Amino acid sequence: MKITIIGLGLIGASIAKATHTRAEITGIDTDQATIAKALSDGVIKQGGADMSLACGSDLIVLAVPVGSIIETAKLVIPHIRKGTVITDTGSTKARIVREMDAVWPCFVGSHPIAGKEDPGYEAGQATLFNEAITIITLTKTSPQYCIEKVTWLWSSCGSQVTTMDPDKHDELMAIISHMPHLLSFVSISIAREIHIHRELLGAGFRDFTRIAASDPVMWRDIFMANKDHVLPLIDEYINELLKIKGIISSGNTHDLEEKLRTYSTIRRNLYENSR
Amino acid sequence: MKITIIGLGLIGASIAKATHTRAEITGIDTDQATIAKALSDGVIKQGGADMSLACGSDLIVLAVPVGSIIETAKLVIPHIRKGTVITDTGSTKARIVREMDAVWPCFVGSHPIAGKEDPGYEAGQATLFNEAITIITLTKTSPQYCIEKVTWLWSSCGSQVTTMDPDKHDELMAIISHMPHLLSFVSISIAREIHIHRELLGAGFRDFTRIAASDPVMWRDIFMANKDHVLPLIDEYINELLKIKGIISSGNTHDLEEKLRTYSTIRRNLYENSR
Repeated sequence: MKITIIGLGLIGASIAKATHTRAEITGIDTDQATIAKALSDGVIKQGGADMSLACGSDLIVLAVPVGSIIETAKLVIPHIRKGTVITDTGSTKARIVREMDAVWPCFVGSHPIAGKEDPGYEAGQATLFNEAITIITLTKTSPQYCIEKVTWLWSSCGSQVTTMDPDKHDELMAIISHMPHLLSFVSISIAREIHIHRELLGAGFRDFTRIAASDPVMWRDIFMANKDHVLPLIDEYINELLKIKGIISSGNTHDLEEKLRTYSTIRRNLYENSR
Repeated sequence: MKITIIGLGLIGASIAKATHTRAEITGIDTDQATIAKALSDGVIKQGGADMSLACGSDLIVLAVPVGSIIETAKLVIPHIRKGTVITDTGSTKARIVREMDAVWPCFVGSHPIAGKEDPGYEAGQATLFNEAITIITLTKTSPQYCIEKVTWLWSSCGSQVTTMDPDKHDELMAIISHMPHLLSFVSISIAREIHIHRELLGAGFRDFTRIAASDPVMWRDIFMANKDHVLPLIDEYINELLKIKGIISSGNTHDLEEKLRTYSTIRRNLYENSR
């Protein structure tokens, strides 16, 4: 199996490090130092900045930011033969799958639910996807051999593979990942002068805002790409906040306790004995 | 020093367990089994449900929920001598201090910034306040000897003591603790049917909603007691969400990146190298 990975950042480098003993990896990255390091590590067999390096590959992995996936695909497509399988690693799927389907029939989208805070080739590790789940998104026209190649890729990385409709994926991710990040980012807006009370900052705010330190460019792309699901959830969240505000304003302790008890019960049931 | 602790739950029991070798502790609790256990543990010297047990104490600790502090104070006051110091352990302070000042001149409010999820006497531990900070709230009329007794109490528990104006305390706590809890509770409202995707729930939502499993009665009391600071913050938060929503709707990627970068930078500066 010949695989070309475009983008040797955290995710692309981890895929290369996990699979280079089982496949022949070509690395494409604009950063020459990264390519040189990957070559000297033996993680890629050949590499450079030129898309023509992808020629002859069986599988192309677009491990670039969400906002650059389509554009990158269009740059590499002229260099690959008909039937070559393409996948990506983006955190949103519906728009990417729709646009890719229009330009390349052999595309199956991927979203590995794994990551860490440090970016870049050096942070990549062969074990990043061990015991993680990767969602691959199928459409009515996804060819079976493409699904199989992409499943093989993630299984080779040690990941458990599950399939999902692209739109369902985005709806679900809006709830379990994108909204928590958005709400965490926004909560920084009320921080004011609390930095002068550093010794107290352990109480709630620290944990709640941890993900607000995430990469602004990555999250800009995700929020924009998944706006169809994120925007209605913002409205819903605001409506619920207004309800709670109304209850607190009116001093209705009974209704407030009921609301909080309902939330608390749902949370406890959702995670049962785990935290 | 004779201390009466009213309420032998997590906080009251931890104070008793931390100080019983240095003071003579009386425990007052409506739960007879708790009193029996505390007596047999040697953590309290005498105990029961009757407020008259507080007679002769130098210091009274109201370790009851925020919503019951004033009412409990009024029940014990007829049994104590003039000059007896009273403190509490509530998470909000302004209203409590104002109302206590009106009925008892020797009151100094306390808020130990410590806790854990398990409630009750058994969960109490002598080390709960070790390396924690306790805020004691001073007013213009707080007698010096009262401040000293309350400071001695928390220092004896291993806590670092800092002082703050009661209203400033509530303003700060609204930001660093009450709002994160409120926003976490409310985010459960968008959870919908995500329970069917348990295997994916690690991605953000889990951490973000952890504190939503907190005790509904305790938080009902806190939100109500601190509504003067919490309600304006809800408005501010909604306004900021609406701004973000506007930016995402209009597809303004530049403004969105700027906003996220600002949040991310503030968060990073706030906690620097710590997470």
